[in-house]
This record gives sequence, C-alpha cells and structure tokens, in this order.
Amino acid sequence: MRVLSNELKQHLNQTVHLEGWLHKKRLLGGLTFINLRDRKGIVQAVIKDKEEVDKLKGMQIGTVMTIDGFVAEEPRAPGGVELHEVKLEISVPVTQEPPIEIDKPLSHKPENLDTLFEHRAIGLRNLNEAKIFYIRSGLLRLIRQFLYEHDFVEIQTPKLVANAAEGGAEVFKLDYFGKPASLAQSPQLYKQVMVGVFERVFEIGPAFRAEPSATTRHLSEVTMLDIEMGFIRDHGEVLNMVQDLLFFVVTKAWEQFGHELGDLKAPEPVLKPEFPRYSMKQIHQMYQEANKLDMSAEIDLTPDEERWICEYAKDHDGCEAVFATDLPNAKMKFYHMAKNDDAALSADLLFRGLELATVPQREHRYENLISQIKAAGIDPDKDESFRFYLQAFKHGLPPHGGCGFGIDRLVEKMIGLGNIKEAVLFPRDINRLWP
Amino acid sequence: MRVLSNELKQHLNQTVHLEGWLHKKRLLGGLTFINLRDRKGIVQAVIKDKEEVDKLKGMQIGTVMTIDGFVAEEPRAPGGVELHEVKLEISVPVTQEPPIEIDKPLSHKPENLDTLFEHRAIGLRNLNEAKIFYIRSGLLRLIRQFLYEHDFVEIQTPKLVANAAEGGAEVFKLDYFGKPASLAQSPQLYKQVMVGVFERVFEIGPAFRAEPSATTRHLSEVTMLDIEMGFIRDHGEVLNMVQDLLFFVVTKAWEQFGHELGDLKAPEPVLKPEFPRYSMKQIHQMYQEANKLDMSAEIDLTPDEERWICEYAKDHDGCEAVFATDLPNAKMKFYHMAKNDDAALSADLLFRGLELATVPQREHRYENLISQIKAAGIDPDKDESFRFYLQAFKHGLPPHGGCGFGIDRLVEKMIGLGNIKEAVLFPRDINRLWP
Repeated sequence: MRVLSNELKQHLNQTVHLEGWLHKKRLLGGLTFINLRDRKGIVQAVIKDKEEVDKLKGMQIGTVMTIDGFVAEEPRAPGGVELHEVKLEISVPVTQEPPIEIDKPLSHKPENLDTLFEHRAIGLRNLNEAKIFYIRSGLLRLIRQFLYEHDFVEIQTPKLVANAAEGGAEVFKLDYFGKPASLAQSPQLYKQVMVGVFERVFEIGPAFRAEPSATTRHLSEVTMLDIEMGFIRDHGEVLNMVQDLLFFVVTKAWEQFGHELGDLKAPEPVLKPEFPRYSMKQIHQMYQEANKLDMSAEIDLTPDEERWICEYAKDHDGCEAVFATDLPNAKMKFYHMAKNDDAALSADLLFRGLELATVPQREHRYENLISQIKAAGIDPDKDESFRFYLQAFKHGLPPHGGCGFGIDRLVEKMIGLGNIKEAVLFPRDINRLWP
Repeated sequence: MRVLSNELKQHLNQTVHLEGWLHKKRLLGGLTFINLRDRKGIVQAVIKDKEEVDKLKGMQIGTVMTIDGFVAEEPRAPGGVELHEVKLEISVPVTQEPPIEIDKPLSHKPENLDTLFEHRAIGLRNLNEAKIFYIRSGLLRLIRQFLYEHDFVEIQTPKLVANAAEGGAEVFKLDYFGKPASLAQSPQLYKQVMVGVFERVFEIGPAFRAEPSATTRHLSEVTMLDIEMGFIRDHGEVLNMVQDLLFFVVTKAWEQFGHELGDLKAPEPVLKPEFPRYSMKQIHQMYQEANKLDMSAEIDLTPDEERWICEYAKDHDGCEAVFATDLPNAKMKFYHMAKNDDAALSADLLFRGLELATVPQREHRYENLISQIKAAGIDPDKDESFRFYLQAFKHGLPPHGGCGFGIDRLVEKMIGLGNIKEAVLFPRDINRLWP
C-alpha cells in the first residue's frame, strides 16, 4: 500500500512503502542521501546498505523507484522525517542527466525564460515550478466555487466562429471545410445571449488573439474567465460582484494554500472587502500632480499610471485592488453602455499594477445597440453572427454587465511573477508555438 | 428586494417584488393570466385591474418586466402559488412575436434540428432547453468535485500547436504569424508530460476535429475531459478510476438535479458500482451468437454492437455501462501500451450504446515508445513536438494511463437526447459554423 510523502508523520516508527522519482542524490560522511519526489512533495532517505547503494549506480534524477523504509523523526529533513533501513527498487531507470538542475529554484530572469520553456517537460518537476500550477488550479477551483454559490451557470461557447470581429483585437483565421472561419477572441456575443436564458453565466476557456505584440503582458492564447449577469440595478452591482469574487479568491487562496504561496515568496495581500474606485480623470489628475507630468493627451491609463494608482491605493486606502471607473468613450466597444458624452459605464479592475478585467455594463436596448454597431462600422444585416446576437435583444434582454477576467494575469499577480508567460504551462506568443 | 420564483412559497400571503421575462399571456374567463420567467423557473400571475392589463397591450413574449404582487396558494399553478393584486412595470418592451413558440417543449426531431439552431438565441429560453444546459453545468461540477477529491490537478494546455498529428483525426490548420500551426485535437502529449509533475492531472476544454463526418455522433468542436494518472499498478486501476467517476457523477446527478432530469424524461440509470468488463472478442462472439451474424471480419465494435452490449449488460448484469476491453492492436495509437500481439491495454467505456471514452494504459518505456512512434510513420527527431514529449520519458515517467472522455456525449446519454448536437449550446459540424 503506497504512502504519500505528506502522510509520513502519521506513520512514525513504522515501515512504509513509497513510490516516486529520484529527485536528488548526494554522498555525505560516507552515507548516501536521496530525495524521493511524489505528488505531495519530497522525502529524504538515508541509505547505508551497500547492496541498496549499488542499485543507484548510474541512476540519474528522474529515475522512477519505490522505497520501503522505516519512518524516523529527523527535524533537519524536509517534513521533519527521514527514511531509514531502506530497500529500493528501480521501476524506470533513467541513465541520462536532466538537461537542467531541478532541485533548486529555476531562474525566471527575462534572459532565461527561453531556456525555461525549452526544458519545460523537466523544469516543471522543480517543486517551485509545480507550485505555480498547483496554485493556478486552486484559484480556478475557488473562482468556480464563488460563482456556483452566486447562482452562475457554467457554459461552453464555440471557439470556431464565422466572425470574431467583436472585440477589436486581431484574429486568427482558418479554413473551415472550405469556408472562412476565425478563432474566438472572447465569448462576448454568446455570453450576452445566454443572459436571456440563465441571467448569470460564466465560462472559463481559451481565447485567441493574433496580436503581434511581444510584451510581458501579451499571449496569443489566454485563459479567460468570462462572466455575465442580468437584472442588474446599476453598473455598481457588476463591480461589486467582480470585487467580491476577487476578494473571496485571494482571501481563500491564502487560507487554503498560503503555504505554497509563501514558498514562492508571493506578496501577502493588502485588500479590503470594498475596493477603492477612482474615475479615469481623477487618476490622470492625481498622477499628474504627484509626478509633475502632463497627462492631458492620454486617453487610456498608461502602464505606469496603473502601477502608480495601485501603489497609491495600497498606501492610502489599504487596498491594492482598484477600480478605474468612467473609462472614456473613445475606448468603448459597441456593446458597452455609454454613461454620458465623455465616459462609458465601464471600469478596469487593477490589481498590483495590472489590469485584470474590464467590467462594463452592456447596452441592452435594441435600437441603441444597432446604432452603436453601425457607428462601429459593422453592417448588422450582412453578418449572420450579428443577426443571432441581435435576436436576443429584439426579444428582450434585461440590463446586464460582466467582464472578461484574465486568469493568467491573476496567477501572475497573485504569485508576483514578472511575466505572464511564467503563469502558463505552455505559453504561446508571436515567437513561441512550442512546446 | 427581488424575490426569485422558487422562493415564493417562503413568502406566502406576503407582497413580493419579482423581475423576469413575460413568458406566456392568455385570457381566461375575463381574466388575464401571465407567466413570468426568471432564472429559477416561472410563476403565474392573475391580472384583474384594467390599468395593469393595459400595460401589457402589444407586449410580446420576452418583454422584461417587474411584478409586485401578493403570494396566494394555488395548487393548480406552477410551484403551487400564484400572484394576485399585481402591479406591473415594463422595463424592456418587446413588440415583436418570438420566431418560435417557447412555452411548450421544442421539437428535437432530426428534420427540425436546423430550425432549433437557427433560433437558438430564443429557443434556449424554453424551460426544457435551458434544463439541458443546467444539467450540463451540474455534470461538470460533479466531475470536478470527484477529480479534486482524488487529488487531480486541473491544467490548461495550448489549443494552438505546431503539430497535432498525435491522434489520428484530421486537423484544422492555420497561419500562426507566418508559421504553420494546427488546432489541438486533444491534450494527449501535454497531459502525459504533466504526469511527471503532478502524477494526476485533468483538463476540461475544447478539442477540434476536422473530420468531414455528418453523423449524430460527430462534431468538429467538442468538449473533452482529459484525465491522466501515474504510478498505476495496472491498467485495471485506470478503468476503476473512470468507472468510479462515471458512477459518482450519474448517481449524484440524480440526487442533486433528478427533478430536472425527470422533467426532460431522462431515463433513470441502471448502474452498479462495478461495471461489467467484456473483451472485444467476447462481445463479437456474444453478438454473433445472439444475432446470427458473422462478425469475423470486424476489427472494431460496430455501432449496433455497442448498443447491443449495453442492452445485454443492462439486462444481464444490471448495469448499462460496460467496458469493452482488449481492444485490438490494429486500433492502437503509438502512445498506447500493447498487452500482447493481438490486443492493447485499452478499453472503451460504453454507456447506453455509445462510446464515452477510450481508456488505455500508455507506453511509458522510452525505447518502446520510440519504436512505436517510428512504426506509426513519425520521425521523432524531426518534430519538435515529439522532442518535448520524449524528453519526459527519457527522464522518467511511471506507468500511467487515462482517457479522453466526451462531455457532450455524456450529456446526450444522461438525458437521452438523440443527437450529440442537442447537448451543445452552439454546435459545430461540417455544415454549421453559426450561430
């Protein structure tokens, strides 16, 4: 019966059976010490018996093996225990050294990222690397828990679409049985239609952007959380839902896997249940005054303003998540609702200096929406996608709003990584389609 | 404060505020009866006051409105209550009739499916249609619950890949910033690599198949549950996990949303915790004897054999889920493990006549795997995807296995739909890229 590395304390002074990978091997004072890795962590074993030591001859890191051994207390060993009197068995011998050393933290310096991904299959076996994706899985679980508790229904919308023109970003095109098709850049039209069915829906899935940008913020394939909720009283209700979601997820994450976050030196969160809200104009003005810069030509927030306002809110409001509200009309998509001639009912959720989500109320009035679509240069009569979309409005959609929330960005900022690619198992960018 | 339709019984003899869509309107004995739909169902209201009746003039199904009314017991009304003394307010007027009637079950006859999808944006507002996708969301939640409880880590692997040649099905190709790319037909190579990190991983996501088949079983975009688990003792351990997963999901689904399943006339499950297992050869022989047919030329199970063996097992074993084991080597993929010269360590999970998943053990031995890849006509040295994949084996992967489990098929068979497309919100096939 297999025992996992994190269960050893329950088996003190017993002989147990473990299975895993050889993770480290060293000679110390005439003894052979090895670390065995399994899905729960590592355990140290001391091997004295020559016959057992011989079995390890030529065996490299990654060798799959079993250990039967006696669990002894040892405060200096990982997990506070150590295996003695061990019997080894090699299940899958590995005779070549790993291409990178995986028993110490791997370098994430910008100049080393290519090496990191080049050896991804092995590098992820590093305990710290694995923790990033253990945390990512945990964050997704918490997000779903919150949304289920708030009556959201999970949907899957198609990624192969006739037209993906809704979002503004460039799209990947492909041949679909002889017809032109695109890869969806978001479930925008579909999730709004689904408000007419379930009122509250969400989707977690891939989105595709053919943007030829090579920054620390861009990927050509991202994981998005898309939320949409109907029968809202006002835009503030959508902001509250997204705020409560982030607060819940960050708080619970530190409760449930704070240990792993701590191992990765993730910054402890500074959050309040109510995130401060500043209008875009206010932020420009505050930043301008604080930094003696002229921001009057800027429409959007600059990356530096995003960093600055989060730092400001952290110090001033005790909260490093901020809503930048009243986004300018110039940035508005056809499906957003205008607040007035200047601004849209739309806000950016900023966290630790990065925009995680744009959170608008949608234009739900059929005639207004048609005007906005036309103003965006789209002929709704000529496009089947819009015929389908508009049908939902023609037959009644309530006031609604939602957001596209970047999961990769959340993981990056939760842990304090420097580049969004580090938060993705196998990232895709303009230069990288592999591994 | 908004009250939802399913909460009315708690507000008997009180005046409440509801919001929703006009779902039905009729005159009966001089009174106006309307049904209001919200995300929890429908509620009936009786309108006597002429002023209120007038507000509904010209208002069609889909009109978004609020109702303030007194909750009276009424056994003949849906939910056992009815609203009296109502005050209406129209929030979003709808003046055109819906393109299809949505207050009775919609026809799912094969000849009506195109109409069903043509009007998908409105048809999904039919309570029965919506239940299909409420159940689908519930099934996904249960699947995740089971897998979390069994120590699986959720991953997201890229859908844009350099080479998607691993699975056999035809792939969609696209231009990726000037380089050729494909859409992933499964996370096969990635999930196996991830066994080296987490031992147990799963992914729920889209997979793309450019198969020009127009059957009731085929889609060009499907939702797959991919599972992979390491350190297995034998192939049976993988079968057990998949069996326990299906048993858990089906059983809990009937506990948690049996009411909705019943409304859709879903067949009640006939399952045992241990699914019967018959080898492919046995099934051919049993079917041959029972039906006086010669099956000696068949390699795979025919669709009729799949139906027959599930019926047989339902009657004979009291279980309508069956494993067809010892799949022939002729069907084997390069990453499967051979059992002997004839058969692979692979089984099909059949449920109610349909294959839900193929459940193989993988070839984890580096040298054997290279031979099998070469035998499949692939040069592993020339292909970056395989270099990455093989790296994981070269540096030690334990015995492992898993499956690709069709979520759309599961939904179809749970509910007893006749075509996989009915289980998908916006299905994609050779003729359909819209809505």
